[in-house]
Amino acid sequence: MQNKELPDFFSKKENEFWMTEDERGTMKLNYRLKNIISAKHSQYQHVAIVDSYDFGRCLVLDGIIQTTALDGCIYNEMISHVPLVTHPNPQNVLVIGGGDCGAANEVSKYDEPQSIDMVEIDAVVVEECRKHLPEVAGQGDMDKRVNILYKDGLVHVKEKTDHYDIAIIDSSDPVGPATKLFEKEFYTDVSRCLKEDGLMVCQSESPVFYRDIMLKTFNTLKELFPIVRLYLAVVPSYPGGLWSFTLASKKYDPLNADLTRLCKHTKYINQGVFKGSFNLPNFMREYIE
Amino acid sequence: MQNKELPDFFSKKENEFWMTEDERGTMKLNYRLKNIISAKHSQYQHVAIVDSYDFGRCLVLDGIIQTTALDGCIYNEMISHVPLVTHPNPQNVLVIGGGDCGAANEVSKYDEPQSIDMVEIDAVVVEECRKHLPEVAGQGDMDKRVNILYKDGLVHVKEKTDHYDIAIIDSSDPVGPATKLFEKEFYTDVSRCLKEDGLMVCQSESPVFYRDIMLKTFNTLKELFPIVRLYLAVVPSYPGGLWSFTLASKKYDPLNADLTRLCKHTKYINQGVFKGSFNLPNFMREYIE
Repeated sequence: MQNKELPDFFSKKENEFWMTEDERGTMKLNYRLKNIISAKHSQYQHVAIVDSYDFGRCLVLDGIIQTTALDGCIYNEMISHVPLVTHPNPQNVLVIGGGDCGAANEVSKYDEPQSIDMVEIDAVVVEECRKHLPEVAGQGDMDKRVNILYKDGLVHVKEKTDHYDIAIIDSSDPVGPATKLFEKEFYTDVSRCLKEDGLMVCQSESPVFYRDIMLKTFNTLKELFPIVRLYLAVVPSYPGGLWSFTLASKKYDPLNADLTRLCKHTKYINQGVFKGSFNLPNFMREYIE
Repeated sequence: MQNKELPDFFSKKENEFWMTEDERGTMKLNYRLKNIISAKHSQYQHVAIVDSYDFGRCLVLDGIIQTTALDGCIYNEMISHVPLVTHPNPQNVLVIGGGDCGAANEVSKYDEPQSIDMVEIDAVVVEECRKHLPEVAGQGDMDKRVNILYKDGLVHVKEKTDHYDIAIIDSSDPVGPATKLFEKEFYTDVSRCLKEDGLMVCQSESPVFYRDIMLKTFNTLKELFPIVRLYLAVVPSYPGGLWSFTLASKKYDPLNADLTRLCKHTKYINQGVFKGSFNLPNFMREYIE
Protein backbone atom coordinates (compact mmCIF):
# COMPACT_ATOMS: atom_id res chain seq x y z
CA MET A 1 0.00 0.00 0.00
CA GLN A 2 1.57 3.29 -1.06
CA ASN A 3 1.14 6.20 1.32
CA LYS A 4 0.32 8.57 -1.52
CA GLU A 5 -2.80 6.61 -2.46
CA LEU A 6 -4.29 6.86 1.01
CA PRO A 7 -6.86 9.32 2.36
CA ASP A 8 -5.62 11.56 5.14
CA PHE A 9 -7.24 9.59 7.97
CA PHE A 10 -4.33 7.22 7.44
CA SER A 11 -0.84 8.28 8.42
CA LYS A 12 2.56 6.68 8.75
CA LYS A 13 4.82 7.20 11.75
CA GLU A 14 8.13 5.41 12.23
CA ASN A 15 7.26 2.92 9.50
CA GLU A 16 3.87 2.06 11.01
CA PHE A 17 0.38 3.00 9.88
CA TRP A 18 -2.05 4.75 12.15
CA MET A 19 -5.70 5.54 11.51
CA THR A 20 -7.42 8.62 12.96
CA GLU A 21 -11.16 8.65 13.57
CA ASP A 22 -12.31 12.24 13.94
CA GLU A 23 -15.37 12.53 16.18
CA ARG A 24 -17.13 15.84 15.84
CA GLY A 25 -13.78 17.68 15.82
CA THR A 26 -13.54 17.31 19.60
CA MET A 27 -12.18 13.78 19.95
CA LYS A 28 -9.64 12.05 17.73
CA LEU A 29 -9.18 8.34 18.16
CA ASN A 30 -5.88 7.03 16.78
CA TYR A 31 -5.47 3.34 16.19
CA ARG A 32 -2.13 1.73 15.45
CA LEU A 33 -2.35 -0.65 12.52
CA LYS A 34 -0.45 -3.80 11.74
CA ASN A 35 -1.44 -3.37 8.12
CA ILE A 36 -3.86 -1.80 5.69
CA ILE A 37 -5.30 -4.84 3.97
CA SER A 38 -7.23 -3.02 1.28
CA ALA A 39 -8.34 0.53 0.54
CA LYS A 40 -10.54 1.62 -2.35
CA HIS A 41 -12.95 4.31 -3.40
CA SER A 42 -16.31 2.78 -4.23
CA GLN A 43 -19.05 4.71 -6.00
CA TYR A 44 -20.35 5.80 -2.59
CA GLN A 45 -17.50 6.03 -0.09
CA HIS A 46 -13.95 5.08 0.80
CA VAL A 47 -13.86 1.41 1.83
CA ALA A 48 -10.92 0.00 3.76
CA ILE A 49 -10.11 -3.17 5.64
CA VAL A 50 -7.34 -2.63 8.19
CA ASP A 51 -5.67 -4.89 10.71
CA SER A 52 -5.45 -3.03 14.03
CA TYR A 53 -3.60 -3.95 17.20
CA ASP A 54 -6.59 -3.46 19.47
CA PHE A 55 -9.56 -4.73 17.49
CA GLY A 56 -8.02 -7.04 14.90
CA ARG A 57 -9.37 -6.56 11.39
CA CYS A 58 -11.82 -3.68 10.93
CA LEU A 59 -14.12 -2.40 8.19
CA VAL A 60 -13.55 1.35 7.83
CA LEU A 61 -15.92 3.51 5.76
CA ASP A 62 -14.85 7.09 5.09
CA GLY A 63 -12.45 6.86 8.01
CA ILE A 64 -14.97 5.57 10.57
CA ILE A 65 -14.74 2.07 12.05
CA GLN A 66 -17.94 0.18 11.25
CA THR A 67 -17.23 -3.28 12.59
CA THR A 68 -14.27 -5.23 13.91
CA ALA A 69 -13.17 -8.81 14.36
CA LEU A 70 -13.12 -8.20 18.13
CA ASP A 71 -16.56 -6.78 18.74
CA GLY A 72 -18.55 -7.11 15.51
CA CYS A 73 -20.32 -10.01 17.19
CA ILE A 74 -21.71 -7.72 19.90
CA TYR A 75 -23.32 -5.27 17.51
CA ASN A 76 -24.55 -7.92 15.07
CA GLU A 77 -25.97 -10.19 17.74
CA MET A 78 -27.80 -7.34 19.43
CA ILE A 79 -29.33 -5.95 16.23
CA SER A 80 -30.39 -9.43 15.02
CA HIS A 81 -31.25 -11.78 17.89
CA VAL A 82 -33.42 -9.28 19.75
CA PRO A 83 -35.94 -8.86 16.88
CA LEU A 84 -35.67 -12.53 15.85
CA VAL A 85 -36.68 -13.65 19.35
CA THR A 86 -39.29 -10.91 19.82
CA HIS A 87 -41.21 -12.04 16.71
CA PRO A 88 -42.61 -15.53 17.36
CA ASN A 89 -42.48 -16.65 13.72
CA PRO A 90 -40.18 -14.50 11.57
CA GLN A 91 -40.53 -15.90 8.03
CA ASN A 92 -39.40 -13.00 5.85
CA VAL A 93 -36.56 -10.90 7.14
CA LEU A 94 -35.17 -7.73 5.58
CA VAL A 95 -31.72 -6.32 6.37
CA ILE A 96 -31.09 -2.79 5.11
CA GLY A 97 -27.38 -2.03 4.91
CA GLY A 98 -25.36 -4.57 6.86
CA GLY A 99 -22.82 -4.91 4.06
CA ASP A 100 -20.41 -6.61 6.46
CA CYS A 101 -22.87 -9.56 6.26
CA GLY A 102 -22.78 -9.92 10.07
CA ALA A 103 -26.49 -9.28 10.65
CA ALA A 104 -27.52 -11.65 7.83
CA ASN A 105 -25.26 -14.32 9.32
CA GLU A 106 -26.82 -13.90 12.78
CA VAL A 107 -30.35 -14.08 11.31
CA SER A 108 -29.29 -17.29 9.52
CA LYS A 109 -28.76 -18.96 12.90
CA TYR A 110 -32.56 -19.23 13.21
CA ASP A 111 -34.66 -21.88 11.47
CA GLU A 112 -37.84 -19.83 11.03
CA PRO A 113 -36.78 -17.41 8.25
CA GLN A 114 -37.64 -18.62 4.75
CA SER A 115 -35.90 -15.69 3.10
CA ILE A 116 -33.43 -13.06 4.26
CA ASP A 117 -33.21 -10.09 1.90
CA MET A 118 -30.06 -8.07 2.46
CA VAL A 119 -30.29 -4.74 0.66
CA GLU A 120 -26.90 -3.05 0.56
CA ILE A 121 -26.19 -0.10 -1.70
CA ASP A 122 -22.43 -0.69 -1.94
CA ALA A 123 -21.24 -3.98 -3.46
CA VAL A 124 -17.64 -3.08 -2.64
CA VAL A 125 -18.38 -3.27 1.10
CA VAL A 126 -19.76 -6.77 0.75
CA GLU A 127 -16.93 -7.93 -1.52
CA GLU A 128 -14.20 -6.59 0.74
CA CYS A 129 -15.74 -7.99 3.93
CA ARG A 130 -16.32 -11.38 2.35
CA LYS A 131 -12.72 -11.39 1.14
CA HIS A 132 -10.89 -9.93 4.13
CA LEU A 133 -13.11 -9.96 7.22
CA PRO A 134 -14.31 -13.54 7.73
CA GLU A 135 -14.67 -13.00 11.50
CA VAL A 136 -17.74 -10.91 10.72
CA ALA A 137 -18.74 -11.84 7.16
CA GLY A 138 -18.30 -15.56 7.68
CA GLN A 139 -16.36 -18.11 5.68
CA GLY A 140 -17.49 -20.21 2.73
CA ASP A 141 -20.88 -19.74 1.09
CA MET A 142 -23.51 -17.69 2.83
CA ASP A 143 -26.72 -19.34 3.98
CA LYS A 144 -28.88 -20.17 0.93
CA ARG A 145 -31.78 -18.17 2.35
CA VAL A 146 -29.79 -14.92 2.09
CA ASN A 147 -30.52 -12.88 -1.06
CA ILE A 148 -28.11 -10.00 -1.46
CA LEU A 149 -29.65 -7.13 -3.42
CA TYR A 150 -27.29 -4.33 -4.38
CA LYS A 151 -29.69 -1.44 -4.35
CA ASP A 152 -30.77 1.56 -2.37
CA GLY A 153 -32.70 0.53 0.73
CA LEU A 154 -34.85 3.66 0.34
CA VAL A 155 -36.05 2.39 -3.03
CA HIS A 156 -36.50 -1.19 -1.85
CA VAL A 157 -38.87 -0.35 0.99
CA LYS A 158 -41.01 1.74 -1.39
CA GLU A 159 -41.52 -1.31 -3.61
CA LYS A 160 -42.85 -3.67 -0.94
CA THR A 161 -46.09 -3.72 1.01
CA ASP A 162 -47.18 -6.08 3.80
CA HIS A 163 -44.25 -8.35 3.01
CA TYR A 164 -41.71 -8.63 5.83
CA ASP A 165 -42.00 -9.87 9.42
CA ILE A 166 -38.82 -8.12 10.49
CA ALA A 167 -36.77 -5.23 9.08
CA ILE A 168 -33.28 -4.73 10.50
CA ILE A 169 -31.89 -1.28 9.68
CA ASP A 170 -28.15 -1.81 9.99
CA SER A 171 -26.97 1.57 8.76
CA SER A 172 -23.78 3.52 9.19
CA ASP A 173 -23.93 6.94 10.86
CA PRO A 174 -26.35 9.52 9.43
CA VAL A 175 -23.77 11.10 7.15
CA GLY A 176 -23.05 10.06 3.57
CA PRO A 177 -25.17 7.28 2.03
CA ALA A 178 -27.06 6.52 5.26
CA THR A 179 -28.48 9.99 6.00
CA LYS A 180 -31.99 9.31 4.75
CA LEU A 181 -32.18 6.03 6.68
CA PHE A 182 -32.78 8.15 9.79
CA GLU A 183 -35.76 10.09 8.42
CA LYS A 184 -39.48 9.72 8.96
CA GLU A 185 -40.28 9.11 5.29
CA PHE A 186 -38.05 6.05 5.32
CA TYR A 187 -39.50 4.67 8.56
CA THR A 188 -43.00 5.18 7.13
CA ASP A 189 -42.04 3.07 4.14
CA VAL A 190 -40.51 0.44 6.41
CA SER A 191 -43.74 0.28 8.39
CA ARG A 192 -45.74 -0.25 5.19
CA CYS A 193 -43.43 -2.99 3.94
CA LEU A 194 -43.93 -4.87 7.23
CA LYS A 195 -46.83 -7.26 7.79
CA GLU A 196 -49.57 -6.28 10.24
CA ASP A 197 -47.67 -7.92 13.10
CA GLY A 198 -44.21 -6.92 11.84
CA LEU A 199 -41.44 -5.15 13.66
CA MET A 200 -38.27 -3.25 12.86
CA VAL A 201 -35.06 -2.47 14.66
CA CYS A 202 -32.39 0.12 13.93
CA GLN A 203 -29.11 1.19 15.41
CA SER A 204 -29.83 4.56 16.99
CA GLU A 205 -26.35 5.86 17.82
CA SER A 206 -24.64 6.75 21.11
CA PRO A 207 -26.91 7.93 23.95
CA VAL A 208 -23.96 9.99 25.19
CA PHE A 209 -22.51 11.65 22.11
CA TYR A 210 -25.48 11.53 19.73
CA ARG A 211 -28.38 11.86 22.12
CA ASP A 212 -30.25 14.08 19.65
CA ILE A 213 -30.19 11.40 16.93
CA MET A 214 -31.24 8.70 19.39
CA LEU A 215 -34.15 10.76 20.68
CA LYS A 216 -35.25 11.88 17.21
CA THR A 217 -35.27 8.24 16.07
CA PHE A 218 -37.20 7.15 19.17
CA ASN A 219 -39.77 9.93 18.87
CA THR A 220 -40.26 9.48 15.12
CA LEU A 221 -40.86 5.75 15.57
CA LYS A 222 -43.32 6.49 18.41
CA GLU A 223 -45.45 8.33 15.84
CA LEU A 224 -45.51 5.29 13.58
CA PHE A 225 -45.58 2.20 15.82
CA PRO A 226 -47.57 1.35 18.98
CA ILE A 227 -44.62 -0.35 20.75
CA VAL A 228 -41.19 1.32 20.75
CA ARG A 229 -38.35 0.16 23.01
CA LEU A 230 -34.81 1.40 23.35
CA TYR A 231 -32.16 -1.11 24.30
CA LEU A 232 -28.42 -0.92 24.90
CA ALA A 233 -25.21 -2.75 24.22
CA VAL A 234 -21.54 -1.94 24.64
CA VAL A 235 -19.51 -1.82 21.43
CA PRO A 236 -15.92 -1.04 22.49
CA SER A 237 -14.84 0.13 19.02
CA TYR A 238 -17.55 2.82 18.95
CA PRO A 239 -16.82 6.11 20.73
CA GLY A 240 -17.97 5.95 24.34
CA GLY A 241 -18.75 2.25 24.01
CA LEU A 242 -22.42 2.60 24.95
CA TRP A 243 -24.68 2.11 21.94
CA SER A 244 -28.44 2.28 21.50
CA PHE A 245 -30.83 0.29 19.36
CA THR A 246 -34.51 1.03 18.87
CA LEU A 247 -37.11 -1.67 18.28
CA ALA A 248 -40.46 -0.54 16.88
CA SER A 249 -43.24 -3.07 16.66
CA LYS A 250 -46.86 -3.33 15.50
CA LYS A 251 -47.78 -6.16 17.89
CA TYR A 252 -45.02 -8.01 19.74
CA ASP A 253 -43.26 -6.48 22.73
CA PRO A 254 -39.65 -7.55 23.39
CA LEU A 255 -40.37 -7.33 27.12
CA ASN A 256 -42.75 -10.31 26.69
CA ALA A 257 -40.55 -12.30 24.31
CA ASP A 258 -40.11 -16.06 24.77
CA LEU A 259 -36.40 -16.00 25.57
CA THR A 260 -36.10 -19.78 25.39
CA ARG A 261 -36.06 -19.27 21.60
CA LEU A 262 -32.78 -17.35 21.84
CA CYS A 263 -29.99 -19.03 19.87
CA LYS A 264 -27.30 -20.53 22.12
CA HIS A 265 -24.45 -20.08 19.64
CA THR A 266 -23.52 -16.52 20.51
CA LYS A 267 -20.54 -14.72 21.96
CA TYR A 268 -22.35 -11.86 23.69
CA ILE A 269 -26.11 -12.20 24.01
CA ASN A 270 -27.83 -14.62 26.36
CA GLN A 271 -31.16 -14.45 28.20
CA GLY A 272 -29.74 -12.27 30.96
CA VAL A 273 -28.09 -9.88 28.53
CA PHE A 274 -31.32 -9.69 26.44
CA LYS A 275 -33.35 -8.74 29.52
CA GLY A 276 -30.67 -6.45 30.92
CA SER A 277 -30.34 -4.53 27.66
CA PHE A 278 -33.83 -3.02 28.15
CA ASN A 279 -33.04 -1.86 31.72
CA LEU A 280 -32.13 1.72 30.89
CA PRO A 281 -30.08 3.87 33.27
CA ASN A 282 -31.96 6.69 34.98
CA PHE A 283 -30.49 9.39 32.73
CA MET A 284 -31.86 7.61 29.66
CA ARG A 285 -35.27 7.05 31.25
CA GLU A 286 -35.42 10.80 31.82
CA TYR A 287 -34.57 11.50 28.19
CA ILE A 288 -37.46 9.47 26.85
CA GLU A 289 -40.08 10.44 29.42
CA MET B 1 -1.31 28.12 31.76
CA GLN B 2 2.02 28.27 29.92
CA ASN B 3 2.71 25.55 27.41
CA LYS B 4 6.28 25.10 28.63
CA GLU B 5 5.11 24.04 32.11
CA LEU B 6 2.99 21.22 30.75
CA PRO B 7 3.79 17.51 30.43
CA ASP B 8 3.86 16.17 26.90
CA PHE B 9 0.41 14.56 27.01
CA PHE B 10 -0.83 18.13 26.57
CA SER B 11 -0.32 19.87 23.25
CA LYS B 12 -1.46 23.06 21.62
CA LYS B 13 -2.77 23.22 18.04
CA GLU B 14 -4.16 26.37 16.44
CA ASN B 15 -4.41 28.05 19.82
CA GLU B 16 -6.33 25.17 21.42
CA PHE B 17 -5.20 22.58 23.92
CA TRP B 18 -5.50 18.87 23.26
CA MET B 19 -4.80 16.01 25.62
CA THR B 20 -3.54 12.63 24.44
CA GLU B 21 -4.23 9.48 26.41
CA ASP B 22 -1.82 6.77 25.31
CA GLU B 23 -3.31 3.30 25.71
CA ARG B 24 -0.69 0.57 25.58
CA GLY B 25 1.03 2.30 22.63
CA THR B 26 -1.64 0.97 20.27
CA MET B 27 -4.43 3.47 20.76
CA LYS B 28 -4.13 7.20 21.32
CA LEU B 29 -7.21 9.09 22.41
CA ASN B 30 -7.04 12.84 21.76
CA TYR B 31 -9.46 15.11 23.52
CA ARG B 32 -9.93 18.73 22.59
CA LEU B 33 -9.92 20.97 25.65
CA LYS B 34 -11.67 24.23 26.34
CA ASN B 35 -9.14 24.88 29.05
CA ILE B 36 -6.59 23.40 31.41
CA ILE B 37 -7.96 24.47 34.78
CA SER B 38 -5.02 23.36 36.86
CA ALA B 39 -1.94 21.20 36.45
CA LYS B 40 0.56 20.31 39.18
CA HIS B 41 3.06 17.70 40.16
CA SER B 42 2.12 16.19 43.51
CA GLN B 43 4.48 13.99 45.49
CA TYR B 44 3.03 10.97 43.70
CA GLN B 45 1.88 11.94 40.22
CA HIS B 46 0.89 14.68 37.82
CA VAL B 47 -2.56 15.98 38.76
CA ALA B 48 -4.61 18.03 36.30
CA ILE B 49 -8.15 19.25 36.03
CA VAL B 50 -9.12 20.00 32.43
CA ASP B 51 -12.31 21.19 30.79
CA SER B 52 -12.97 19.02 27.73
CA TYR B 53 -15.53 19.45 24.96
CA ASP B 54 -16.86 15.92 25.22
CA PHE B 55 -16.83 15.09 28.93
CA GLY B 56 -16.84 18.51 30.61
CA ARG B 57 -14.34 18.81 33.46
CA CYS B 58 -12.06 15.82 34.02
CA LEU B 59 -9.55 14.69 36.63
CA VAL B 60 -6.40 13.57 34.80
CA LEU B 61 -3.64 11.68 36.66
CA ASP B 62 -0.36 11.16 34.80
CA GLY B 63 -2.19 11.80 31.53
CA ILE B 64 -5.02 9.31 32.10
CA ILE B 65 -8.63 10.45 32.59
CA GLN B 66 -9.86 9.22 35.98
CA THR B 67 -13.29 10.73 36.24
CA THR B 68 -15.36 13.31 34.41
CA ALA B 69 -18.31 15.61 35.02
CA LEU B 70 -20.22 13.69 32.34
CA ASP B 71 -19.84 10.12 33.51
CA GLY B 72 -18.21 10.20 36.96
CA CYS B 73 -21.66 9.41 38.33
CA ILE B 74 -21.75 6.09 36.49
CA TYR B 75 -18.50 4.79 37.91
CA ASN B 76 -19.08 6.17 41.41
CA GLU B 77 -22.65 4.93 41.67
CA MET B 78 -21.69 1.45 40.48
CA ILE B 79 -18.74 1.08 42.84
CA SER B 80 -20.74 2.41 45.83
CA HIS B 81 -24.43 1.55 45.65
CA VAL B 82 -23.89 -2.10 44.73
CA PRO B 83 -21.98 -2.94 47.96
CA LEU B 84 -24.11 -0.58 50.08
CA VAL B 85 -27.27 -2.40 49.02
CA THR B 86 -25.72 -5.87 49.16
CA HIS B 87 -24.77 -5.43 52.83
CA PRO B 88 -27.99 -5.19 54.89
CA ASN B 89 -26.51 -2.95 57.60
CA PRO B 90 -23.29 -1.22 56.53
CA GLN B 91 -22.14 0.75 59.60
CA ASN B 92 -18.43 1.24 58.95
CA VAL B 93 -17.39 1.88 55.38
CA LEU B 94 -13.85 2.19 54.05
CA VAL B 95 -12.97 3.82 50.74
CA ILE B 96 -9.39 3.25 49.54
CA GLY B 97 -8.36 5.82 46.97
CA GLY B 98 -11.35 7.66 45.58
CA GLY B 99 -9.61 11.01 45.88
CA ASP B 100 -12.23 12.58 43.62
CA CYS B 101 -14.60 12.15 46.62
CA GLY B 102 -17.28 10.69 44.34
CA ALA B 103 -17.48 7.29 46.04
CA ALA B 104 -17.60 8.84 49.53
CA ASN B 105 -20.40 11.14 48.36
CA GLU B 106 -22.41 8.22 47.00
CA VAL B 107 -21.93 6.25 50.25
CA SER B 108 -23.16 9.33 52.13
CA LYS B 109 -26.54 8.99 50.42
CA TYR B 110 -27.30 6.07 52.76
CA ASP B 111 -28.40 6.45 56.38
CA GLU B 112 -26.81 3.27 57.77
CA PRO B 113 -23.12 4.22 57.74
CA GLN B 114 -21.89 5.69 61.03
CA SER B 115 -18.44 6.40 59.65
CA ILE B 116 -16.95 6.57 56.18
CA ASP B 117 -13.14 6.43 56.17
CA MET B 118 -11.69 7.68 52.91
CA VAL B 119 -8.00 6.75 52.71
CA GLU B 120 -6.35 8.62 49.85
CA ILE B 121 -2.58 8.81 49.48
CA ASP B 122 -2.54 12.06 47.52
CA ALA B 123 -3.98 15.18 49.19
CA VAL B 124 -3.48 17.16 45.98
CA VAL B 125 -6.08 15.01 44.18
CA VAL B 126 -8.67 15.72 46.86
CA GLU B 127 -7.87 19.43 46.99
CA GLU B 128 -8.02 19.89 43.23
CA CYS B 129 -11.25 17.94 42.84
CA ARG B 130 -12.91 19.76 45.74
CA LYS B 131 -11.83 23.06 44.20
CA HIS B 132 -12.44 22.44 40.50
CA LEU B 133 -14.63 19.39 39.98
CA PRO B 134 -17.81 19.87 42.03
CA GLU B 135 -19.84 17.68 39.64
CA VAL B 136 -18.01 14.71 41.16
CA ALA B 137 -16.54 15.95 44.45
CA GLY B 138 -19.69 17.76 45.50
CA GLN B 139 -20.20 21.31 46.68
CA GLY B 140 -20.06 22.72 50.19
CA ASP B 141 -18.94 20.66 53.16
CA MET B 142 -18.71 16.93 52.83
CA ASP B 143 -21.00 14.72 54.89
CA LYS B 144 -19.88 14.82 58.56
CA ARG B 145 -19.50 11.03 58.63
CA VAL B 146 -16.66 11.18 56.05
CA ASN B 147 -13.15 11.10 57.58
CA ILE B 148 -10.48 11.79 55.00
CA LEU B 149 -7.17 10.16 55.93
CA TYR B 150 -4.19 11.11 53.78
CA LYS B 151 -2.21 7.92 53.99
CA ASP B 152 -1.29 4.83 52.07
CA GLY B 153 -4.21 2.43 51.82
CA LEU B 154 -1.77 -0.47 52.01
CA VAL B 155 -0.71 0.69 55.48
CA HIS B 156 -4.23 1.47 56.66
CA VAL B 157 -5.60 -2.01 55.99
CA LYS B 158 -2.68 -3.56 57.89
CA GLU B 159 -3.64 -1.56 60.97
CA LYS B 160 -7.27 -2.67 61.17
CA THR B 161 -8.84 -6.01 62.07
CA ASP B 162 -12.51 -6.98 62.07
CA HIS B 163 -13.52 -3.35 61.71
CA TYR B 164 -15.29 -2.52 58.45
CA ASP B 165 -18.54 -3.78 56.94
CA ILE B 166 -17.59 -2.63 53.46
CA ALA B 167 -14.30 -1.76 51.75
CA ILE B 168 -14.51 0.05 48.41
CA ILE B 169 -11.22 -0.10 46.50
CA ASP B 170 -11.50 2.86 44.16
CA SER B 171 -8.02 2.76 42.66
CA SER B 172 -6.51 4.11 39.50
CA ASP B 173 -4.96 1.67 37.01
CA PRO B 174 -2.31 -0.75 38.29
CA VAL B 175 0.59 1.53 37.38
CA GLY B 176 2.13 4.18 39.63
CA PRO B 177 0.80 4.52 43.19
CA ALA B 178 -2.01 1.97 42.71
CA THR B 179 0.07 -1.04 41.58
CA LYS B 180 0.02 -2.85 44.91
CA LEU B 181 -3.73 -2.36 45.29
CA PHE B 182 -4.14 -5.18 42.76
CA GLU B 183 -2.06 -7.76 44.64
CA LYS B 184 -3.00 -10.68 46.85
CA GLU B 185 -1.22 -9.37 49.92
CA PHE B 186 -3.38 -6.27 49.86
CA TYR B 187 -6.63 -8.18 49.36
CA THR B 188 -5.64 -10.46 52.27
CA ASP B 189 -5.26 -7.41 54.48
CA VAL B 190 -8.59 -6.06 53.25
CA SER B 191 -10.25 -9.33 54.15
CA ARG B 192 -8.79 -9.19 57.65
CA CYS B 193 -9.90 -5.61 58.22
CA LEU B 194 -13.47 -6.58 57.30
CA LYS B 195 -15.93 -7.96 59.86
CA GLU B 196 -16.98 -11.60 59.62
CA ASP B 197 -19.89 -10.66 57.36
CA GLY B 198 -18.00 -7.92 55.51
CA LEU B 199 -17.56 -7.43 51.80
CA MET B 200 -15.33 -5.51 49.43
CA VAL B 201 -15.58 -4.21 45.91
CA CYS B 202 -12.89 -3.04 43.52
CA GLN B 203 -12.74 -1.67 40.01
CA SER B 204 -11.22 -4.49 37.97
CA GLU B 205 -10.45 -2.80 34.65
CA SER B 206 -11.70 -3.38 31.11
CA PRO B 207 -12.81 -6.92 30.23
CA VAL B 208 -11.76 -6.17 26.65
CA PHE B 209 -8.38 -4.44 26.93
CA TYR B 210 -7.23 -5.60 30.37
CA ARG B 211 -8.77 -9.04 30.55
CA ASP B 212 -5.66 -10.40 32.30
CA ILE B 213 -5.97 -7.89 35.17
CA MET B 214 -9.69 -8.56 35.51
CA LEU B 215 -9.19 -12.32 35.62
CA LYS B 216 -6.23 -12.12 37.99
CA THR B 217 -8.30 -9.96 40.36
CA PHE B 218 -11.28 -12.31 40.14
CA ASN B 219 -9.18 -15.43 40.71
CA THR B 220 -7.19 -13.92 43.57
CA LEU B 221 -10.39 -12.87 45.33
CA LYS B 222 -11.84 -16.36 44.79
CA GLU B 223 -9.00 -17.69 46.93
CA LEU B 224 -9.88 -15.32 49.76
CA PHE B 225 -13.69 -14.95 49.77
CA PRO B 226 -16.52 -17.50 49.45
CA ILE B 227 -18.68 -15.24 47.23
CA VAL B 228 -17.10 -13.40 44.29
CA ARG B 229 -19.18 -11.70 41.58
CA LEU B 230 -18.12 -9.70 38.55
CA TYR B 231 -20.42 -6.94 37.39
CA LEU B 232 -20.32 -4.43 34.56
CA ALA B 233 -21.00 -0.82 33.77
CA VAL B 234 -20.33 1.43 30.81
CA VAL B 235 -18.01 4.37 31.47
CA PRO B 236 -17.77 6.28 28.16
CA SER B 237 -14.58 8.12 29.14
CA TYR B 238 -12.71 4.84 29.70
CA PRO B 239 -11.24 3.08 26.65
CA GLY B 240 -13.76 0.67 25.17
CA GLY B 241 -16.47 1.92 27.53
CA LEU B 242 -17.12 -1.47 29.13
CA TRP B 243 -15.78 -1.64 32.68
CA SER B 244 -15.71 -4.40 35.29
CA PHE B 245 -16.08 -4.34 39.04
CA THR B 246 -15.53 -7.30 41.35
CA LEU B 247 -17.45 -7.78 44.58
CA ALA B 248 -15.99 -10.25 47.09
CA SER B 249 -18.04 -11.10 50.13
CA LYS B 250 -17.83 -13.23 53.27
CA LYS B 251 -21.59 -13.71 53.64
CA TYR B 252 -23.94 -11.56 51.55
CA ASP B 253 -24.53 -12.26 47.86
CA PRO B 254 -25.45 -9.30 45.64
CA LEU B 255 -27.71 -11.62 43.65
CA ASN B 256 -29.92 -11.87 46.76
CA ALA B 257 -29.74 -8.19 47.75
CA ASP B 258 -32.86 -6.33 48.87
CA LEU B 259 -33.01 -3.88 45.98
CA THR B 260 -35.76 -1.83 47.59
CA ARG B 261 -32.96 -0.34 49.72
CA LEU B 262 -31.35 1.18 46.60
CA CYS B 263 -31.13 4.97 46.83
CA LYS B 264 -33.48 6.71 44.37
CA HIS B 265 -31.29 9.80 43.93
CA THR B 266 -29.04 8.49 41.20
CA LYS B 267 -28.32 9.29 37.57
CA TYR B 268 -27.39 5.81 36.36
CA ILE B 269 -28.19 2.94 38.69
CA ASN B 270 -31.70 1.69 39.41
CA GLN B 271 -33.03 -1.76 40.30
CA GLY B 272 -33.00 -2.92 36.68
CA VAL B 273 -29.47 -1.67 36.08
CA PHE B 274 -28.28 -3.30 39.36
CA LYS B 275 -29.68 -6.66 38.32
CA GLY B 276 -28.59 -6.30 34.69
CA SER B 277 -25.02 -5.47 35.66
CA PHE B 278 -24.48 -9.05 36.90
CA ASN B 279 -25.79 -10.59 33.65
CA LEU B 280 -22.44 -11.17 31.98
CA PRO B 281 -22.13 -11.65 28.22
CA ASN B 282 -21.22 -15.16 27.07
CA PHE B 283 -17.58 -14.28 26.34
CA MET B 284 -17.13 -13.14 29.95
CA ARG B 285 -18.87 -16.19 31.35
CA GLU B 286 -16.39 -18.29 29.41
CA TYR B 287 -13.45 -16.35 30.84
CA ILE B 288 -14.42 -17.02 34.42
CA GLU B 289 -15.55 -20.63 34.05
